[in-house]
Amino acid sequence: MNSPLHPASGTSSPPPARLGRVQRLMAQQGVEVMVCFKPENSFYLSGFNPIIYSHPVIAIVAAGRDPIMLVHALRDDHGRASAWVADIRLYGAWSNKVTLGPNWLDALASILRELGVAAGRVGIEEDFLPLRRFAQLKQALPQATFSDVSPLIEQARLIKDADEIAQARIAARIADCGMAAAVEATADGGSEREISIASMEAMNRLWLRHYPQVEVCDFGSLEGGVQNGLWTWALAGDRLFYNCDNPTLRKPRRGETVAVFIWSIANGIHAENERIIACGPLPAEHRRAIDAILTIRAEVDALIRPGTPYRELFEQVKSRLEARGYGNYIPGRIGHGIGIGAHEHSSLDARSPLVLEPGMIFTFEPNLRIPGVGGTQISDTVLITDTGREYLTQSPGGYIEV
Amino acid sequence: MNSPLHPASGTSSPPPARLGRVQRLMAQQGVEVMVCFKPENSFYLSGFNPIIYSHPVIAIVAAGRDPIMLVHALRDDHGRASAWVADIRLYGAWSNKVTLGPNWLDALASILRELGVAAGRVGIEEDFLPLRRFAQLKQALPQATFSDVSPLIEQARLIKDADEIAQARIAARIADCGMAAAVEATADGGSEREISIASMEAMNRLWLRHYPQVEVCDFGSLEGGVQNGLWTWALAGDRLFYNCDNPTLRKPRRGETVAVFIWSIANGIHAENERIIACGPLPAEHRRAIDAILTIRAEVDALIRPGTPYRELFEQVKSRLEARGYGNYIPGRIGHGIGIGAHEHSSLDARSPLVLEPGMIFTFEPNLRIPGVGGTQISDTVLITDTGREYLTQSPGGYIEV
Repeated sequence: MNSPLHPASGTSSPPPARLGRVQRLMAQQGVEVMVCFKPENSFYLSGFNPIIYSHPVIAIVAAGRDPIMLVHALRDDHGRASAWVADIRLYGAWSNKVTLGPNWLDALASILRELGVAAGRVGIEEDFLPLRRFAQLKQALPQATFSDVSPLIEQARLIKDADEIAQARIAARIADCGMAAAVEATADGGSEREISIASMEAMNRLWLRHYPQVEVCDFGSLEGGVQNGLWTWALAGDRLFYNCDNPTLRKPRRGETVAVFIWSIANGIHAENERIIACGPLPAEHRRAIDAILTIRAEVDALIRPGTPYRELFEQVKSRLEARGYGNYIPGRIGHGIGIGAHEHSSLDARSPLVLEPGMIFTFEPNLRIPGVGGTQISDTVLITDTGREYLTQSPGGYIEV
Repeated sequence: MNSPLHPASGTSSPPPARLGRVQRLMAQQGVEVMVCFKPENSFYLSGFNPIIYSHPVIAIVAAGRDPIMLVHALRDDHGRASAWVADIRLYGAWSNKVTLGPNWLDALASILRELGVAAGRVGIEEDFLPLRRFAQLKQALPQATFSDVSPLIEQARLIKDADEIAQARIAARIADCGMAAAVEATADGGSEREISIASMEAMNRLWLRHYPQVEVCDFGSLEGGVQNGLWTWALAGDRLFYNCDNPTLRKPRRGETVAVFIWSIANGIHAENERIIACGPLPAEHRRAIDAILTIRAEVDALIRPGTPYRELFEQVKSRLEARGYGNYIPGRIGHGIGIGAHEHSSLDARSPLVLEPGMIFTFEPNLRIPGVGGTQISDTVLITDTGREYLTQSPGGYIEV
């Protein structure tokens, strides 16, 4: 194919700040080059999500130079139109494209030889790389030694760059729109599934009208890509105790709650927005639990700022829950990192060694599950700023009754 | 939590036929037990998809007995309500649940000791198992030897069981509904994105009205689950050469095509339905390519039956394309396996050693990409029956012009 879509016209832009963070961490760890296969990570270091990963996309990051993206020749035009990486190399056979070799392995080995690091310390993702692919790598790079860079990339991903924060804001706007539609569908007497579908339709319609340049594809399994990642699920009554399940035709009864969970995505960056909706007045004990969470959220809000340890935020929530008699129901964590992953690895919990820093984005979601009484489900996506925090999701956050 | 949702009331049913296939292949390979972590495979051998996989679901299959499903205690009620496996074991800590150990590793080791296979030949998925998890397994099972069962499971998954075929029919009905909506939105002058959204809305509305017992969640990455896998994308004009991309606001012009791609899912089983729609009369060379594909599909149809080698079906299409002057544009394959994966591993190509057998489901999609002319995109989901084939997707398959 003679590049019928986009000639190699340089749609690429300067590498974002994360490249410097990653390279500094690589230098500390003594890694000369890293080869990233995990779709989330190769996207992080190239800007390209082909949606279907039957042929791997490999981000190759070496010290002191911009990344190289290695893709199958059939993804050349698409990759050039999407990636911020300028140096795109090809493998495989496709039309008249000139490639580095018949498969990714030969091409990768030749690139590492060109960079002079084929006998060096090569970073790999031990939390993702399957045994079979690692065996191939070892065979193609017999002189290399390998070093796990999964924690290094997780650390780099904790701080979001300006481009990522901009996309998170868009994802949050879409999620807010989905929540408004979900509340309305609940007020109209909808089932879990009706609430979810109305919410997803509203998000897609907003995407259609307002975000022409935004993609909403997500990162799937290796057996199938994810074309559309604007999702809502709703759990009526005690079904909240499942935490995650496909919505059913169950309608909330009067005096029950519906928990609405929304995950949205904009150009590879997620937002999360969760609310619990009372259908008419709740039994006093259930109402008291929701009010407790709302009060505690307001009380600890001033601590959500640079310098607060994750575990202090957790302990402040925990002690307030204990003071209100909920000591038997302390959650394992009260939030998690979010970004390219809907659930990134960091947790706001008792064991975290992390401290809040500007540019971090996480979900803030202290919640309760009380058997025989009910639960709460309120989550916002929060950005740490230079002086405090900014709620990216902005749906009404108080007690909601329809 | 005192199982507020579903007591252990035995919603499980007898194990499907695939268990026997898997156990026969294990015996041939000398594998005493296999431990499956890949979400697609643990679902295949248990019936449970928790959507979020932050805590692994492990299917443990040993010779001569039904599978064991090992899940985190917080998934106990949900797992019991979903799985066909009756023997469900727990790990982790959650409310008052009794578990086998604080983490999956201790629990798994204790189960393998109980089964008397902790020092045996243990099957693992080398195409999926990350290095880090394998290192943990080796440490927990110091006496075991390990054997790759990825090909074994791929082989078992080639033949679909009655329950899987029933779900594939539902997925195909949903995809057909999505295609009808996409054709209508194209006739109405929609953009790629309008066509895609109209189609996804129609599929979700059909799911809401007609399939109360069906789940449409899919299998995501380990950083985020997939709540809704009813997806359409549309590519106008030369954008077809990308094959997969998120839909844009581009509208097909008169004399161009729009290709519509639909992936649907019902209770974990996929269908694929793809059509190319002409927007007014096409240039003669483009029209000729589509007509050629339609004619060739009709000509080789009688070969889609038990006993035909995959590669013969491919060669029959190839020789007909050559006879019509398309020898420079022979596709790499003309279809792929489909089921729990939207793209399973088998390909209808020149190298396949496989032969069509009753119960196989695959996509039939001989297509062309001709630079400067255009392409074709027609795909159906096809079941091999005892005597021939059944098209599960049944959208009008001829030349479509709006």
